[in-house]
Amino acid sequence: MIVAIGGIDGYIGWALALHLAVRGHKVVGIDNFITRKRVEEVGSWSATPILTMQERIKAAKEVLGVDIQFVEGDLVNYSVVRSFFEKYKPDAFVHLAEQRSAPYSMIDVYHAVETQTQNIASSLNIVYAMKEVSPHTHLVKMGTMGEYGTPNIDIPEGFFEVEYHGRKDYLPFPRMASSWYHWSKVHDSGNMMFANKIWGLKISDVMQGVVYGTRTNEIVDERLHTRFDFDEVWGTALNRFCVQTVLGLPMTVYGKGGQTRGFISLTDSVQCLRLIIENPPDKGEYRVFNQFDEPYSVLELAQKVYKVGKEMGFEPAIAHVPNPRVEAESHYYNPEHEKLKALGFKRTRELEEELRNMLRDLSRYKNRLEAKKDVIFPRTDWRRARNPVR
Amino acid sequence: MIVAIGGIDGYIGWALALHLAVRGHKVVGIDNFITRKRVEEVGSWSATPILTMQERIKAAKEVLGVDIQFVEGDLVNYSVVRSFFEKYKPDAFVHLAEQRSAPYSMIDVYHAVETQTQNIASSLNIVYAMKEVSPHTHLVKMGTMGEYGTPNIDIPEGFFEVEYHGRKDYLPFPRMASSWYHWSKVHDSGNMMFANKIWGLKISDVMQGVVYGTRTNEIVDERLHTRFDFDEVWGTALNRFCVQTVLGLPMTVYGKGGQTRGFISLTDSVQCLRLIIENPPDKGEYRVFNQFDEPYSVLELAQKVYKVGKEMGFEPAIAHVPNPRVEAESHYYNPEHEKLKALGFKRTRELEEELRNMLRDLSRYKNRLEAKKDVIFPRTDWRRARNPVR
Repeated sequence: MIVAIGGIDGYIGWALALHLAVRGHKVVGIDNFITRKRVEEVGSWSATPILTMQERIKAAKEVLGVDIQFVEGDLVNYSVVRSFFEKYKPDAFVHLAEQRSAPYSMIDVYHAVETQTQNIASSLNIVYAMKEVSPHTHLVKMGTMGEYGTPNIDIPEGFFEVEYHGRKDYLPFPRMASSWYHWSKVHDSGNMMFANKIWGLKISDVMQGVVYGTRTNEIVDERLHTRFDFDEVWGTALNRFCVQTVLGLPMTVYGKGGQTRGFISLTDSVQCLRLIIENPPDKGEYRVFNQFDEPYSVLELAQKVYKVGKEMGFEPAIAHVPNPRVEAESHYYNPEHEKLKALGFKRTRELEEELRNMLRDLSRYKNRLEAKKDVIFPRTDWRRARNPVR
Repeated sequence: MIVAIGGIDGYIGWALALHLAVRGHKVVGIDNFITRKRVEEVGSWSATPILTMQERIKAAKEVLGVDIQFVEGDLVNYSVVRSFFEKYKPDAFVHLAEQRSAPYSMIDVYHAVETQTQNIASSLNIVYAMKEVSPHTHLVKMGTMGEYGTPNIDIPEGFFEVEYHGRKDYLPFPRMASSWYHWSKVHDSGNMMFANKIWGLKISDVMQGVVYGTRTNEIVDERLHTRFDFDEVWGTALNRFCVQTVLGLPMTVYGKGGQTRGFISLTDSVQCLRLIIENPPDKGEYRVFNQFDEPYSVLELAQKVYKVGKEMGFEPAIAHVPNPRVEAESHYYNPEHEKLKALGFKRTRELEEELRNMLRDLSRYKNRLEAKKDVIFPRTDWRRARNPVR
C-alpha cells in the first residue's frame, strides 16, 4: 500500500514510517518540523539525539534497506495538502501532524487559539483534499482517549446505545476533554464524523492512550532513534518519570496520582496503526478505535518505575507535587478496547520490560538530560494562564 | 446593567440592543460589519433598508430616547477583545458576533476553515479576556438547536442522565450537527463548558431555534429596522418563504419538507435573551437553554405562509426542490424547552400574526427584493462543494 504520514518527523510518525516501510508498504511523509522548533522554544530537546530528515532517510536505507519519501510542507495550507494528495493519491493517510501537547495549549490565549485553529484547519484541509482528488484514501486520524474525560460510566469505542425517556438511539459518546488541546481533538472528531456523513469518506478515528517507550522493533540503531520528549510541555508522565529516575530526581506525581489513563508502548502503538491501515473500513464507513493496552493510575506507573529503577541500581523517589491541571484525582475508569483485538492486536511489550529498555536508553544520554534539567518541573498551570506576551 | 453585545449590527444584535436599552440597560456594542460585506459578496442585501451604525444610534436616540454606545472592532483579535472588557467591564456580554450561515460554511474548504477558526477564536478570546480582566461578566453565548441534530430520542437542555452498563452519570447530550457552521457551534459549546470548569466563569449557552420576523416592540420606525436576509446563503427558510410569496415566486421547500426545527419570533428571541441576562447564573455556573417557541416542519411553515398569503391577496405557491443539504427529511423531534419558561418566558407573538406583519413589511420593500431575485434559489450543495477559487 501507499501510506502517507502527516507528521512523519514526530515521535510516533517516524517510528510508524520505519515499521510500515519494513512491512513492505510504500511510505511518503510530510512535515513542517514545527515540533522541533516548538520544543526548542521551551528550552528543551529530544532526550534521544535525532538526525535531520535527510539523514534519517539515508540511515533507514542503509540500516533497514527501505526507501522513505519526504515532502516538507504545512498541512494548514490547503494548496500544499491538495497537491500532496494529487501527487501521491495514498491508500491511507495517517494524520499525526497536529499540535499534540496539552500544556502547550494551556500557556495562554494565543497558544489556545493556535492549537485549536491549526489542528482543525489541517483536518478540514485533508478531508476536502480527499473528497476533491483522492476519495479512495483511508484517513487514519489521531484522536486521544482524553476526549472522553473520566465519566462515571464505561466508555465505549466512539458510539453507544442511549435510552432516554423510553426511546433509543445509537449516538456518539459525550466528550468531556480537559485541555484546549484535548478539545481540539474532540472538535476534529465531530468534523470527521460529518465529513464521512456528507461525502462517504473512509475514516478511522483513533482514540489513543498515552504512548511510552524509546524503541520499536525497527529502531535498532542509534541513527534511527525517534524523538523522546521529557520536558513539562512536550513530555508525558511516564517518559518524564524515567528521565527523572535516570537523573536521580524524584518523580513528580501531580496531586494524589489517582488519575487513571490508558497506556500503550510505542511498539504496540505502531502495531495498532498498521493493523488499522491494513484493515481499512468499508466504503463510506466511519469507525472509532480506543487504542490503548492497559489502564494505569499515575501513581501505579511511578511505583513501576520505582521498582524497575531500584532493580537496575538507580535511586528512585516519588514526590507528590501540586496538580497544575484541572482533573479528578480519583475516579472510575473503564474504557472498552476490543476492536483492535478483533483486528489481531496482541500486546508485544510488557510494561516492566519496556521501562528497563527506557532506563537503559536514557542512561546513555544522561548528559542531554542533565543539560535540560530545569524544564522538567511543571510551570504551566491550568487555572492561571501566564500573561500573554505576544 | 451594563450589557455588551458582540455583533450589535446584526439581525438579532440590533433588535436586542434596542430592546435592552428601552428596558433601561446600558448597552455597548461591538461589530466589524463583516456580515454587511459578506452579504454583498453573494450579491444580496437586507430586504429592509438599514442605516449605518452612526445613523442607527442617532435614530435610537431620537425615536426611543436611548443612548447606545458602539466600538468598531474584530473579536478575532485578542487585544481588541481584552481592551473592550477592560474598558467596559460589562455585567453581561452577549456573543452574537459569529459567522452564522450554514450554506456560507459549506461553499468550499476556505469558507469551512474560516467559519470554524474565526468562530472558535472569538469565543476563546472572550473567555480569556473575561478571566483576565472581567471575571464577574456573565457570558451569553449563542449556540443553535442545530447542534443536537435530529436524534431519535428526546433532546434535553444540554445535559442528561445516562445509564450505560448499569452505571449512571450526568453528561453533555451528544451533538450531531449538519454543517461546518453548526459544528463550529458545537466546538464552541465544548470550549465554553471547559472555560467554566477551569475558571468558574458564569456562562449561559443558548441553543437557539430559527428566528423569524421583521419587527420587535421597539422597531416602530423605518429608521430602526434591523437587517432581514433572504438570499440562499444568509436567509432562513421562513424569511425566504415570505419574500418568495411577496415576489409571486413559489416557496422553495427543500425535499419533502418534513425537516422539523424549533422556531421563535425575533420579538420573543430578544425577550428570552433579556430574561437570561436579567437572571444570571450563579457564580461558577454553566447552563444551557433550548431557546425556541414551537417546532414546525418546513412544509408546515410553507403551508402557514400559503394560508396567510392567500388571505392577504398574494398568490402563494409551494414547490419542492432537490434538497441541497444532507439531512433527514422525516424524523422524530422532541426537544425540551422548559428552562426559559421557568425564567418567565411567555410567547407574545403568534406565528400567523407575525407572518402577516412580515408580508406587509416586505411588500413595502418589494423593489429591493425584485432587484435580488436571482440569489434566492439554492446554489450551495452540501455534497458538492464548489471548486475553491482563492
